[in-house]
Amino acid sequence: MSDPLELFFNPKGVAIIGASTNPLKLSHGVVRNLKNCGYQGPIYPINPKGDEILGLKVYPTILGVPDPIELAVIMIPAPYVPATLEECGQRGIKAVIVITGGFREAGADGAAEELQLKEIADRYGMRLIGPNCVGVMDTHLPLDTTFITAMPRPGHIGFVSHSGAICGGTTDWAREVSVGYSRIVSLGNQLDVDIADGIRMMQSDPHTHVISIYAEGLPDGRRFVEAALPVFRDKPIVMLKAGLTSSGTRAVASHTGALAGDEQAYLAACHRAGVIAVDSLQEQNDLAIALATQPLPRGNRVAILTNAGGPAALAADELDRGGLLMANLETETIEKLKTATPRGAQLANPVDMLGGPRAEMYKTAGGILLEDPNVDMLMAIFVPQAITPIDEVVANIVMSSADTSSADAAPAEAGKPVVCCLVGGESITEAARFLNENGVPFYQDPNRAARALCGLLRYAELRVRQDLTPQPIEDVHAETARAALKGAWQKTGAGFLDAETSAAVAAAYGIVVPGSGLARTAGEAIDLAEALGYPLAMKLIAADVIHKADVGGVVLNLQDAAAVRESFETMVGTASVGAQTDRHADTRRVMLQQMAPSGQEVILGAQRDTQFGPVLMFGMGGIFVEVLNDVAFRLAPLSAYDAEQMVMETAAGQIMKGVRGQPPRDIGMVIDTLRRIGQLVDDFPCISELDINPLIVLEDGKGVSAVDIRIAITEPPR
Amino acid sequence: MSDPLELFFNPKGVAIIGASTNPLKLSHGVVRNLKNCGYQGPIYPINPKGDEILGLKVYPTILGVPDPIELAVIMIPAPYVPATLEECGQRGIKAVIVITGGFREAGADGAAEELQLKEIADRYGMRLIGPNCVGVMDTHLPLDTTFITAMPRPGHIGFVSHSGAICGGTTDWAREVSVGYSRIVSLGNQLDVDIADGIRMMQSDPHTHVISIYAEGLPDGRRFVEAALPVFRDKPIVMLKAGLTSSGTRAVASHTGALAGDEQAYLAACHRAGVIAVDSLQEQNDLAIALATQPLPRGNRVAILTNAGGPAALAADELDRGGLLMANLETETIEKLKTATPRGAQLANPVDMLGGPRAEMYKTAGGILLEDPNVDMLMAIFVPQAITPIDEVVANIVMSSADTSSADAAPAEAGKPVVCCLVGGESITEAARFLNENGVPFYQDPNRAARALCGLLRYAELRVRQDLTPQPIEDVHAETARAALKGAWQKTGAGFLDAETSAAVAAAYGIVVPGSGLARTAGEAIDLAEALGYPLAMKLIAADVIHKADVGGVVLNLQDAAAVRESFETMVGTASVGAQTDRHADTRRVMLQQMAPSGQEVILGAQRDTQFGPVLMFGMGGIFVEVLNDVAFRLAPLSAYDAEQMVMETAAGQIMKGVRGQPPRDIGMVIDTLRRIGQLVDDFPCISELDINPLIVLEDGKGVSAVDIRIAITEPPR
Repeated sequence: MSDPLELFFNPKGVAIIGASTNPLKLSHGVVRNLKNCGYQGPIYPINPKGDEILGLKVYPTILGVPDPIELAVIMIPAPYVPATLEECGQRGIKAVIVITGGFREAGADGAAEELQLKEIADRYGMRLIGPNCVGVMDTHLPLDTTFITAMPRPGHIGFVSHSGAICGGTTDWAREVSVGYSRIVSLGNQLDVDIADGIRMMQSDPHTHVISIYAEGLPDGRRFVEAALPVFRDKPIVMLKAGLTSSGTRAVASHTGALAGDEQAYLAACHRAGVIAVDSLQEQNDLAIALATQPLPRGNRVAILTNAGGPAALAADELDRGGLLMANLETETIEKLKTATPRGAQLANPVDMLGGPRAEMYKTAGGILLEDPNVDMLMAIFVPQAITPIDEVVANIVMSSADTSSADAAPAEAGKPVVCCLVGGESITEAARFLNENGVPFYQDPNRAARALCGLLRYAELRVRQDLTPQPIEDVHAETARAALKGAWQKTGAGFLDAETSAAVAAAYGIVVPGSGLARTAGEAIDLAEALGYPLAMKLIAADVIHKADVGGVVLNLQDAAAVRESFETMVGTASVGAQTDRHADTRRVMLQQMAPSGQEVILGAQRDTQFGPVLMFGMGGIFVEVLNDVAFRLAPLSAYDAEQMVMETAAGQIMKGVRGQPPRDIGMVIDTLRRIGQLVDDFPCISELDINPLIVLEDGKGVSAVDIRIAITEPPR
Repeated sequence: MSDPLELFFNPKGVAIIGASTNPLKLSHGVVRNLKNCGYQGPIYPINPKGDEILGLKVYPTILGVPDPIELAVIMIPAPYVPATLEECGQRGIKAVIVITGGFREAGADGAAEELQLKEIADRYGMRLIGPNCVGVMDTHLPLDTTFITAMPRPGHIGFVSHSGAICGGTTDWAREVSVGYSRIVSLGNQLDVDIADGIRMMQSDPHTHVISIYAEGLPDGRRFVEAALPVFRDKPIVMLKAGLTSSGTRAVASHTGALAGDEQAYLAACHRAGVIAVDSLQEQNDLAIALATQPLPRGNRVAILTNAGGPAALAADELDRGGLLMANLETETIEKLKTATPRGAQLANPVDMLGGPRAEMYKTAGGILLEDPNVDMLMAIFVPQAITPIDEVVANIVMSSADTSSADAAPAEAGKPVVCCLVGGESITEAARFLNENGVPFYQDPNRAARALCGLLRYAELRVRQDLTPQPIEDVHAETARAALKGAWQKTGAGFLDAETSAAVAAAYGIVVPGSGLARTAGEAIDLAEALGYPLAMKLIAADVIHKADVGGVVLNLQDAAAVRESFETMVGTASVGAQTDRHADTRRVMLQQMAPSGQEVILGAQRDTQFGPVLMFGMGGIFVEVLNDVAFRLAPLSAYDAEQMVMETAAGQIMKGVRGQPPRDIGMVIDTLRRIGQLVDDFPCISELDINPLIVLEDGKGVSAVDIRIAITEPPR
């Protein structure tokens, strides 16, 4: 076995270190589960007291265990874990699960002990899951190293969870509704094996059709993106992350010490990685079931077959909100449906068979709808009533879908997706299980069934989306930018660069800044003004003046030499250079800058996120910034395609196309500027913040002008 | 019993017309349910064949049934219903449920037969539920006139449903999770008893704490608003309406023939009526459970008590999205929690007791949290695991909430709301039932529990909101407006009024329009211009010119008499008056209008909705209209308070407050104008459409100017 991560699922021999003879102890539960699940290799309980557990010989130490032995599960108190891990290394074991808690999550001492574990694992070349986890399951092998009551039935959802409790809850739920899982991994503190590794574990598993992730923190966000990117077209990745809002972050931080990231940066990372972000466990499971069992839709047109109009209308409303359409049935389809449905049935879509259809009509009418070339997906709805037996109904729904999907077929194969909504409670429990067991996803609520179809289409679109790999921009002068940044660091250290240096750094990356220069005297200012041309803006450059506008430090629209002189004197003072009364006066200069013609104002920015690195922002400028929240975010750097998408998903982008008689704006240059910023902040990790506010966007073909640029650095450029 | 609607729930004697001796027939099921549910009055099965059903004597006709008899349930084929209804009238019965379908929903003939039923019912003063329904339930009396398997347990949710299938599905679900209901009414085609009556039936029932409505159509939307308004402060009304989107409307229309309304008008009606609109059955039930059993929160601060951090973080994220806060616990609370939780527990909020709390800690710690004055609501979360028995956990959660809420207490009494989330499936089923039975709402998903708390707060705020009753505006000249509208109707009939008449109608209602006048000749134009003052706009008024701007029919910024003459001649032609070559030329005139100073542009409008009457619209004007969708809707007319809320919920309103150095605008006059439009369209139902686009809003105190007004009428004013 070449991939050491595979040893966690398919080991030749498993040791359970800390196994107890007491059936009430969790460590006993692990031995019982591993033995009962059907695992075929040898199981070695380890306990200094020796004895026997469930007929298995107990070894006093891992060092004395015979071959083959490839996986150790450690469940002893935290203080004893390091020495035992050392022994596992000596014994040549390459895969270790540390279920024991009380490390990082217990405070500083625990965190230090955790680092010790990492050192030992690295020294022996061991991969380590945990600590503070519940282990792993593989339903197909089978293998169960957890103390969770029992595994779900074998299926096609691979679940990667930060939290052991969520693994337990999900498993419990899956057994109730008979949803199948392939592998379940509880990562705990992610000391070594992390979510990125979790994705790879699922990628390599042929039984896994969809990767479902529950995360609390993503300390290395870029590693996650790199792990997901090569996978998402083969296997959809659905991810739920707790701690996105400030309240949620506080909740996560208090219990695992995980660093929760900024929500916008996380969503930008999911976008880049091709990961579908969801907001709740329910939404995650609802979508995973559909993705695990259904082929992908080839279009957005849905047919609904129902015995009650109300739930169909609710589903139609939700489909509409998600951008899906009710299919227009072909005349031929409607003709065929006439003989396949009860008299009086409504044959428009939704096809409402009213109160009393025969069960087999769900198969016949369902099949007719699936054959219609205008239908891309089918939703079957049944509200239990006295006349039609529900077990027969669901059997027929499964038959109608049998030609087009199969529980064992990989997603995205031929066929059309079919989902089923049963409205009820008591009466539907068994039928719901039957549906899930036979490859038709069950939903108790029409809106949830509709959202699952929306999710299928969203993934189908994501799967064929254009490649987002950023293309490097060639015509940038990194050395010029580096020199400017280095100079700024030497002069003022961390913080914002002055306007002149910011503009120079941006210009080095080909960002269009208005022509400008510096002047120390009125005479210099006039010479410079004549060279730049009018109209001009004058800005005071002085270390002691932060809010320029407040002290009359910005004057706009200077039209001639006289105006330049007058403004210079007002701003700097006639006798200021070398004046003894003002200790800052000798550092005072003015910047003269060409005025940009008027145009649409937009904002471009970049921020460095602790987890995901540089994140770009684009949105509407001017008075609307604070009120509208019209902004889009992406990870930097950006491909041209992604930059265009980013701009066009904002109202600012739509307006730039030219609405209500306004001229179209130079969107191409906005995209270019965004990409140049992206490359700049990616090339220089010392830049913590960058803002262009505003970028003036002129008419199409006439370019842009970055009127005001602010750049902050936190360290010298490398 | 003074209220005839009460006869449906508390009749002295019930006849079931069409009762069958065949146990497989639905009509037999109704007799069985009524007999088995515990109904105490006499039950009279009616069937021409006579015989006996379940030991009850079968009467051949309703006319022969002895007293007391107050309710008839009709389940015979549609063609026989009218004659039977006539007999019910003769027998003196005042309440009739027609379960039989095949009327309006079956086409034009059915619709005609349905009207016949209405005529008969009205003639005898009978109230009629249905046709095409499943009847009613009262779990407390008890009474069950449906053929649905069984009633839910007695509780406090009153359910009014257009659809019988949804009644069946909801009942089935309620039994599974042991959620209590007070009354359930299936309205069917709403021939007589409609949703407004349904609200009154629940209002008068002391067991009903929350009114839950499922609607497909609201033919008389204003009647619904009037029914809900006097009720919503006493009993929350949660409403789900199918068919809000175009897809959903089509789905509803095809199966019941209900007219589905425009979504914005519906939401405006819910706003006025104090009704909480929800989007799915799940959301409806989740919120109804909480409202039926919990006291209302006095603030927005939530404490979470959990044995797993992940679900707590998910809940915290969802609370944050809904505008709720995680409570800051008092130091004293944290001190107390130290002894009430396991060692190592995280005592910040959420209070995470980690893997192995003792069950009674949910009571003790829960009680401590509820005592904290900074805590307004409590969410208890439990993920089942091996150590802590779930039945004991939920018993303790119920005990912690016992002091503050009770299943039998009316909402809004003293105490703090408590909800519970159990994450799992198999292991939680019994515990979930126990929670619901003991007055603590259960949710399987942390996000759903969080949204329920958000819903409780939303209702608490709704309950105390300011009265929205529109105050009539006195200084309007209805007769002036009427005369103008009448003149326009006589001249051009249905359609848009000309600019001059529109402005006159608006001015009659005190809407500020720029000074203007009409001129037929260049000389008249110059005289008028001198009187109005410059700058002026000139608009061509001609029956044959619709798009004025396209034919040079609008000229702006005329600064003097020469400009007026030149524009007039370009627009109308020097020799046009009376010219033989142009048959429209003699009707051509120009309107001269004062130019409004520049200011913020907003749009105000009104549309007449078929179900809800006049609906007002307000939003941002200019180039942003199409891109931003920044609009608010309300029913007309409007109170000053509601008009202000309407304006301030848009970005346009926020910007008018004065952002980024812009001056504050005259919001007061915008509100005034909105209210005047509201009164105008309410006073004149002949107005089908009204638009002011744009209304120029000047700086605060300087007023507004309705530059362009369009009014359409469909009939003469009454």
